[in-house]
Amino acid sequence: MPVLPSGYSIRRVESSDYEGVVETLKVLTVVGDVTKEQFEETVAYWNEVTVKSKGESMKAYNPHVITDDSGKVVATGNVFIERKVLHDCGLVGHIEDIAVAKNQQGKKLGQLLIEHLSDLALSRGCYKVILDCDEKNVGFYQKCGYSIKGVEMDRRS
Amino acid sequence: MPVLPSGYSIRRVESSDYEGVVETLKVLTVVGDVTKEQFEETVAYWNEVTVKSKGESMKAYNPHVITDDSGKVVATGNVFIERKVLHDCGLVGHIEDIAVAKNQQGKKLGQLLIEHLSDLALSRGCYKVILDCDEKNVGFYQKCGYSIKGVEMDRRS
Ligand SMILES: CC(C)(COP(=O)(O)OP(=O)(O)OC[C@H]1O[C@@H](n2cnc3c(N)ncnc32)[C@H](O)[C@@H]1OP(=O)(O)O)[C@@H](O)C(=O)NCCC(=O)NCCS
Ligand SMILES: CC(C)(COP(=O)(O)OP(=O)(O)OC[C@H]1O[C@@H](n2cnc3c(N)ncnc32)[C@H](O)[C@@H]1OP(=O)(O)O)[C@@H](O)C(=O)NCCC(=O)NCCS
Repeated sequence: MPVLPSGYSIRRVESSDYEGVVETLKVLTVVGDVTKEQFEETVAYWNEVTVKSKGESMKAYNPHVITDDSGKVVATGNVFIERKVLHDCGLVGHIEDIAVAKNQQGKKLGQLLIEHLSDLALSRGCYKVILDCDEKNVGFYQKCGYSIKGVEMDRRS
Repeated sequence: MPVLPSGYSIRRVESSDYEGVVETLKVLTVVGDVTKEQFEETVAYWNEVTVKSKGESMKAYNPHVITDDSGKVVATGNVFIERKVLHDCGLVGHIEDIAVAKNQQGKKLGQLLIEHLSDLALSRGCYKVILDCDEKNVGFYQKCGYSIKGVEMDRRS
């Protein structure tokens, strides 16, 4: 496995990450006019939801950032843990909203982030971790240990 | 839109649905040795988790069943609502674990269930509803108003 460049670190999102996370997510899709208050409220919600399984309680949402040697957010992603009846009332991790800042791509930050979120979900007892991606990113996720499983479909309002 | 056969109805899962839900899910995948207690605990958890958005609070998990004219469970599926920062701190519905009992397939129950779960998520403010499926079921979901969006990938422990 690659390692983070010197001075970079990975940690859970904090409510003070407003600008860094919003800016970083823009490489991925439309973020919209998210205010600081809305961001902080979302982080508070993410911190509050728990998933209970087999007597243990843990956070359902696990949003993370990678910061560079100046503390700036350069990558972000989330994994949330769903509880099912299938597979012995099993847990499934859903990786969502992976983005690496344009000028930081190609330094293995994406791979390190996926590795970190996947390990987190598997270590909390998920029997699998899934994600949806564009055709053009399949090669990246294969390098991260993922295999093609099925088709993502959507319906919009 | 098709309508439910006479005497059939659709409603939220209750903890008394243990046998019906477990039996119905077996057409989909491995359910395992889920006990009545584990099922009831899962339903209690599903009832407890809320998603808060724009001052409103609603259930994050929305497991449903279709029952026949004798009250037997003949189809089941879930939609849970995820809260994001993207898309103006938008909500996304995730449809999961859709199954129609073998001897009840082809009666439009699947389509009615997907329609119901999708409408529920969209009416609660989701900007999109997504699901993952096998290649062989793409045609079914297209009849339900879904379009191919991307690739589902997974990693197992
Ligand atoms: C896709 C993305 C997350 C990859 O992160 P990254 O930090 O640039 O990639 P890494 O440096 O960790 O790449 C790890 C490996 O995957 C490869 N790789 C990266 N992107 C790839 C792609 N699209 N297809 C195939 N391989 C890819 C790299 O070349 C590297 O391979 P190597 O080990 O042989 O050198 C990032 O580029 C990104 O955020 N892109 C824009 C937004 C986006 O598309 N998000 C995902 C939506 S599904
Ligand atoms: C797939 C499944 C949910 C469909 O439910 P169903 O109640 O049998 O289907 P419906 O009667 O609602 O079908 C609605 C329409 O889709 C069509 N259809 C059903 N399954 C289809 C498939 N696999 N491919 C293409 N079209 C399909 C029907 O012919 C019908 O078309 P029509 O309106 O032209 O008559 C159900 O058969 C099932 O549970 N299968 C086993 C488990 C499974 O595969 N689950 C989904 C995993 S992703």
